[in-house]
Amino acid sequence: MKLADLPTPCLVLDRAILARNIDRMARAVGRLGVALRPHLKTAKSIDVARMVLASPHAPISGITVSTLAEAEYFAAHGITNILYAVGITPQKLDQVAKLNAAGAQVSIVTDDVEVAHAIAAHPGQMRAFIEIDCGEQRGGMPPDAPELEAVATALGRRLAGIMTHAGHSYSGRSIPEMADIAEAERNAALTAVRRLAAAGLPCPIVSVGSSPTALHARALGGVTETRPGVYMFGDLFQAQIATNDADSIAVTVLASVIGRRPSEHRIVLDAGGMALSKDRATESAPHDYKFGLVLDTLGRRSYGHSLVVRANQEHGVVALDPEVPQDFRIGDRVRVAPNHTCMTSAAHDRYFVVDGGDEVVAVWPRINGW
Amino acid sequence: MKLADLPTPCLVLDRAILARNIDRMARAVGRLGVALRPHLKTAKSIDVARMVLASPHAPISGITVSTLAEAEYFAAHGITNILYAVGITPQKLDQVAKLNAAGAQVSIVTDDVEVAHAIAAHPGQMRAFIEIDCGEQRGGMPPDAPELEAVATALGRRLAGIMTHAGHSYSGRSIPEMADIAEAERNAALTAVRRLAAAGLPCPIVSVGSSPTALHARALGGVTETRPGVYMFGDLFQAQIATNDADSIAVTVLASVIGRRPSEHRIVLDAGGMALSKDRATESAPHDYKFGLVLDTLGRRSYGHSLVVRANQEHGVVALDPEVPQDFRIGDRVRVAPNHTCMTSAAHDRYFVVDGGDEVVAVWPRINGW
Repeated sequence: MKLADLPTPCLVLDRAILARNIDRMARAVGRLGVALRPHLKTAKSIDVARMVLASPHAPISGITVSTLAEAEYFAAHGITNILYAVGITPQKLDQVAKLNAAGAQVSIVTDDVEVAHAIAAHPGQMRAFIEIDCGEQRGGMPPDAPELEAVATALGRRLAGIMTHAGHSYSGRSIPEMADIAEAERNAALTAVRRLAAAGLPCPIVSVGSSPTALHARALGGVTETRPGVYMFGDLFQAQIATNDADSIAVTVLASVIGRRPSEHRIVLDAGGMALSKDRATESAPHDYKFGLVLDTLGRRSYGHSLVVRANQEHGVVALDPEVPQDFRIGDRVRVAPNHTCMTSAAHDRYFVVDGGDEVVAVWPRINGW
Repeated sequence: MKLADLPTPCLVLDRAILARNIDRMARAVGRLGVALRPHLKTAKSIDVARMVLASPHAPISGITVSTLAEAEYFAAHGITNILYAVGITPQKLDQVAKLNAAGAQVSIVTDDVEVAHAIAAHPGQMRAFIEIDCGEQRGGMPPDAPELEAVATALGRRLAGIMTHAGHSYSGRSIPEMADIAEAERNAALTAVRRLAAAGLPCPIVSVGSSPTALHARALGGVTETRPGVYMFGDLFQAQIATNDADSIAVTVLASVIGRRPSEHRIVLDAGGMALSKDRATESAPHDYKFGLVLDTLGRRSYGHSLVVRANQEHGVVALDPEVPQDFRIGDRVRVAPNHTCMTSAAHDRYFVVDGGDEVVAVWPRINGW
C-alpha cells in the first residue's frame, strides 16, 4: 500500500524520523544520568511506546500518561509502571485501584490535603506523587507552600515522590533559556525534597520534565527521572523552541486537493479543523504557521511558504506561496505539518506508518478519549 | 444514572434544549416555503437526526453530511437521501458509487470541469451539485464564473442542481445583517440557475443555507432547500450572531475540578484542549469566552463570568469570577459551554443525554473520523 492509496484526510507517521527523535532524547537523558519516563500523551500508541522503551541509551523508570484510558490501554499491553500525571479526584481512585488489582502499578498525582487523605484511606493499592508547581501555574503547589508536609503526612507510606512539570518552558525560545528553565524546574523539585527530608518524610522518586527541559538541561543532580513526550513527533511549534528541527517532524496529515483557484494562489484541502485541530500554538511563536505548513507527499518543503490559513470543519484553505508552481489538480495530495502534534494526532484514530518513503509499512492504532 | 456518576470529562446533550432549537429552525424554514436538508456535521448522531427529521414544521428533502463516514453511517441507519457537501475528488467516487449501489442516494459536489467529466464517466450511480461561491471564498465558483456551463454540460444528466453556503454569514452580527447575507446567498444561487436555464440545462434543486441565514432569511423564492446544522446545538459563538440565545446551548462538557487556588481565583478542570477543542471562535466575536464559559452541573450560569482561560492537553485553567463563591473542592463538577460546538462535540465519541435535569436518560453514539 502506498500513500496514494490511502483515504484522505489521514495521519502519516514517519518511523525513520520518529526513531531519530527517540534516539536523540534517550542520549540526552542518558548523559544526564537520570531515568526516562516517557510521556505517551502525544503518541498514545503501544507501537511507539515499544520503540521508546527499546532504546539502549537511557534507563526507563516507567511511562507517563495523561488519561486513565491510556493507563488501561498500556497496562493491557503489558506496560505496568505508569504515572497518571494529571491531578486525581477521589472519584477516580476506584478505577486506579482496579487497574492495580489487575497487576498494574499506576501511580497518581495530587497537591491537595483532602485528596491525600482520600488516597490514604482507599482500600485499593496505589502510590501518589505530590505535584509541585515550578512556575507553570497550572497544577501543583509552589515548592514553598505551607501545606507540603501535611499532604505528605496524609499520604503516609503511599507517598511515591514529588513531580513537577516546566510547561512554561514553552515560552522559552533558545537552548540557553531552556537550560535555565530546566535548572529552575530542578530547583523547585529539590526544594520540596529537602523540606520533606527535613520532616523525616521519604521521597524516593523525583520526577521532572518537559521535552525542551529534558533535552537541554545542563545537569539533573538530585532528580531521578524525566518525562518528555512531544519530542517523539515534534511539530512546527517545537521546531521553534529548540526541541526538534524543522525536518524532524514525524507526524503529518495527508490531504487531498478539493478546490483550486490558481489566479488567487489558493487551493482547498480536505483537511480542515477536524483533521488538523484548531490549535494555533505557533501564533505566539516567532513564526506563525497559521493551521499548518503544506509539504509534498514525501514530506519535503516543495511548496515554499504555503500555509493552511483557514480551517473550517472539513475544509483547509491554503494560501499558496506565489513562488511555487500553482498547477494543482483536484485529487492531488499534499502533507500538512502540524502546529501542535498532540492535538493533531488526537484528531485521528490510527497512524499510517512510512519509513521515509511513500510505502505504508504499518498501521498503528491510537487510544483517544477518556 | 446521574451526571454525578459519569466519568469526566464527557459530553452532555440536553435534549430539551435540542428539541427547542430543532423546533425553532423547522418553523423558520417552514415559513419560508423551502425544504430542510439538515446538516448533520455537528450532531453526527442518528438519534439527533431522527428528532430533526420528525419535526412536522418543515418538509425534509434529505440530509447533509461533511464526511463519507457520516454518509455510510446514516445510510446504514436507513437515511438514504444524502448530500455530501464537501468538494469531491475523483478518487472518492468509487466509495460514493458503492454506497449508492447498496441503496443510498448520495449526491456530491464539484466546481471543476475535470472532476465533472470524471463524475459523468464513472460507471456507478451518482448525481452532483455544482458548488457556487456566494462570498465565503472557500469552495465553489463565483456565480459569474465562465466555466459554469462547461461543468454543467460535463455532468450532463448527472446534474442534480446547484448549492451554495454563506459561511461568511458568521461575520454578521445582527438579524438584519443575516437577512442581507441570506439575500446575497439566494441571489448568487439564482444567478447560476438563470445562466443554466438560459443554456437549456435543467437545475431541479437549488440548495442554500447556513444556520444564521436559514433562520433569518426574509424570503427564499427560487430556492428549494436549506442546509443549516449548528443551530441544533448552538454555542457561545452562535449565541453572538443571532442563531441561538445564550440559554439555548444544548451541548456542554462535564468536567471535574482537579486543582484549586482560591487566593488566585483559579480552579483547574480535567477538561482541556482535548475535551473542549482548541477552537477560539469567540476570539473574533464581540465577547471573547476564551476556551469556554463555566456553568454549574445543571447548566446554569451560577459562576458569573468564570472562563476557561487556558487549555492544555488535559488541563483547563479557569479564571473564576471573583464575585462568586470560590469554595470548590477537588472532585466538584461543572459544565463548560463551548465556543464552537462542532469542534467540541467531535472530541467525544458519545453524548450523555439529559432532559433539563441531572438524570442521564440516554447515551447516544457519534460518528467521528473519515
